[in-house]
Amino acid sequence: MKRTSFSRWPCSIARTMDLLGDWWTPLVLREAFYGIRRFDQFQQELGIARNTLTDRLRRLVDEGLLEKRPYQTEPLRYDYLLTEKGKDFFGVLAAMSRWGDRWLAGDEGAPVVFHHDACGHDAHAEVVCAACSKPLRAEETSMRMGPGYPERLKSRPDVQRRFADSTS
Amino acid sequence: MKRTSFSRWPCSIARTMDLLGDWWTPLVLREAFYGIRRFDQFQQELGIARNTLTDRLRRLVDEGLLEKRPYQTEPLRYDYLLTEKGKDFFGVLAAMSRWGDRWLAGDEGAPVVFHHDACGHDAHAEVVCAACSKPLRAEETSMRMGPGYPERLKSRPDVQRRFADSTS
Repeated sequence: MKRTSFSRWPCSIARTMDLLGDWWTPLVLREAFYGIRRFDQFQQELGIARNTLTDRLRRLVDEGLLEKRPYQTEPLRYDYLLTEKGKDFFGVLAAMSRWGDRWLAGDEGAPVVFHHDACGHDAHAEVVCAACSKPLRAEETSMRMGPGYPERLKSRPDVQRRFADSTS
Repeated sequence: MKRTSFSRWPCSIARTMDLLGDWWTPLVLREAFYGIRRFDQFQQELGIARNTLTDRLRRLVDEGLLEKRPYQTEPLRYDYLLTEKGKDFFGVLAAMSRWGDRWLAGDEGAPVVFHHDACGHDAHAEVVCAACSKPLRAEETSMRMGPGYPERLKSRPDVQRRFADSTS
């Protein structure tokens, strides 16, 4: 599928979206968090076309979120297992799930509940500031150029305006 | 664009992805968090085709994440402003940004830093359990059927196995 590439944009949201590529990829990852490991299981659970699934799994392996490990040799078949990078994506899905529970679920309530085995409670994800642990709200957060912001863009008036405007 | 609809799936991640629709939508929202309000500004900042932008803005308005407010009458022109539902999506983008900073930024570091005006620190987003405030990790979290899980699916063996397998 031809599309604009966001992978070199100086923005981690754009880069992440570029990696995801489309709506199927987060759902393939979701399945991995449900314990799904094998091609046929992914295919069955998602009702996804086999060629699309092949493509998305390859991308997730290439990008290092899943790793292939053979579970049988004749014929050769693989498990797809979450790497550290893949496991760390759980927070993004959890935040997305919470937002959907809150705004898209309607009266019947959340379709799925997260149980936090570590503390023993059913609980949703909350996105907080790593420094003060308070919820991170848009109105109280501004964006600034980071160490990885491209040197050649830093002094451009439109870029400076962009970051100035982000101040709440 | 013809595609599988996830909007009725019993999963808030699928529903959210369905609403986003593609890679442009989160970036349009990102621009709104940078203070962008007007069609031409969105277009300029993102380098997005005008018809694509029209479509994504319409969807975000229809879904209640943005609202249109006229800022001039002849010709009629609108500001696109974040609603509560739209503002609440900030956490998802912040979690995504953190993941990208960690795994996609490379040696040069984060391109953009979040400054939490509320506490005065530069800090990244952290996704925690709302009950115990500890980081919500995949290995310590399991998924359970929630109140909104469809009655007719609850007793299906494959569904029961799915939730049993999600237990870490």
